[in-house]
Amino acid sequence: MLGNIAKIPLKKFHLKKGDLFHGIKKSDKSFYGFGEIYFSWINYNSVKAWKYHKEMHLNLIVPLGKVLFVFYDQKTLETKEFIVGDDNYARLSVPKNIWFGFKGLSKTDNLVVNVASIEHNDNEVLSKNLEEINYDWKLD
Amino acid sequence: MLGNIAKIPLKKFHLKKGDLFHGIKKSDKSFYGFGEIYFSWINYNSVKAWKYHKEMHLNLIVPLGKVLFVFYDQKTLETKEFIVGDDNYARLSVPKNIWFGFKGLSKTDNLVVNVASIEHNDNEVLSKNLEEINYDWKLD
Repeated sequence: MLGNIAKIPLKKFHLKKGDLFHGIKKSDKSFYGFGEIYFSWINYNSVKAWKYHKEMHLNLIVPLGKVLFVFYDQKTLETKEFIVGDDNYARLSVPKNIWFGFKGLSKTDNLVVNVASIEHNDNEVLSKNLEEINYDWKLD
Repeated sequence: MLGNIAKIPLKKFHLKKGDLFHGIKKSDKSFYGFGEIYFSWINYNSVKAWKYHKEMHLNLIVPLGKVLFVFYDQKTLETKEFIVGDDNYARLSVPKNIWFGFKGLSKTDNLVVNVASIEHNDNEVLSKNLEEINYDWKLD
């Protein structure tokens, strides 16, 4: 399951008046439809966890700051980590049915953009408290 | 033509670990399909202008900073201005066939997110130099 999470490097173009960063295109291989885009800020040394989507395919992009994402497979009890943002600019393509959480690593702002395959719907989201999945977030 | 540009206020949810900002949903009235999302930073007191899309419907969102957008109708020679971002968080829905440019107003970072109805394609974009359309950008 966690093996189906893909990290797709994205391009940044450095321009004098302000950089241009790629995001996601309809023709990308790992594009699974568009439902909604929203922005989730994550403060330094804070964690938003855990969420699980029964239907939504996520595309996670960090245009500002640096974020640790942790994914958890409740069948195998495995975890998988990705740090993206700043000098590792990429899109994480995340299938449904995976628990995940994320932590802000940059002391300035950390911005997570989710390009989601369906619109937000409380009925397809499960939540757990931070402590309910055993992972050392190494909080200061 | 400029009258078809819509400013749609968007919600911000203030959360302890980091805020959540709405973007755009497939079911929004002014959603005209998804082609690509990209991020355009604009430095303080810099202007990116002018561009014109023959096919692309733009959705412009400023999750960080404050940006002045200027739209120009080459038939009526009218201009229309919007300042969005920070305390005026909104989505600008911009039909094709309008010249536009934008200026960074915040001294920290200014981020423009474009949720575009089609993928980038050089063949549908026209460009003009800043001076080719008469507008006082009030640059410092």
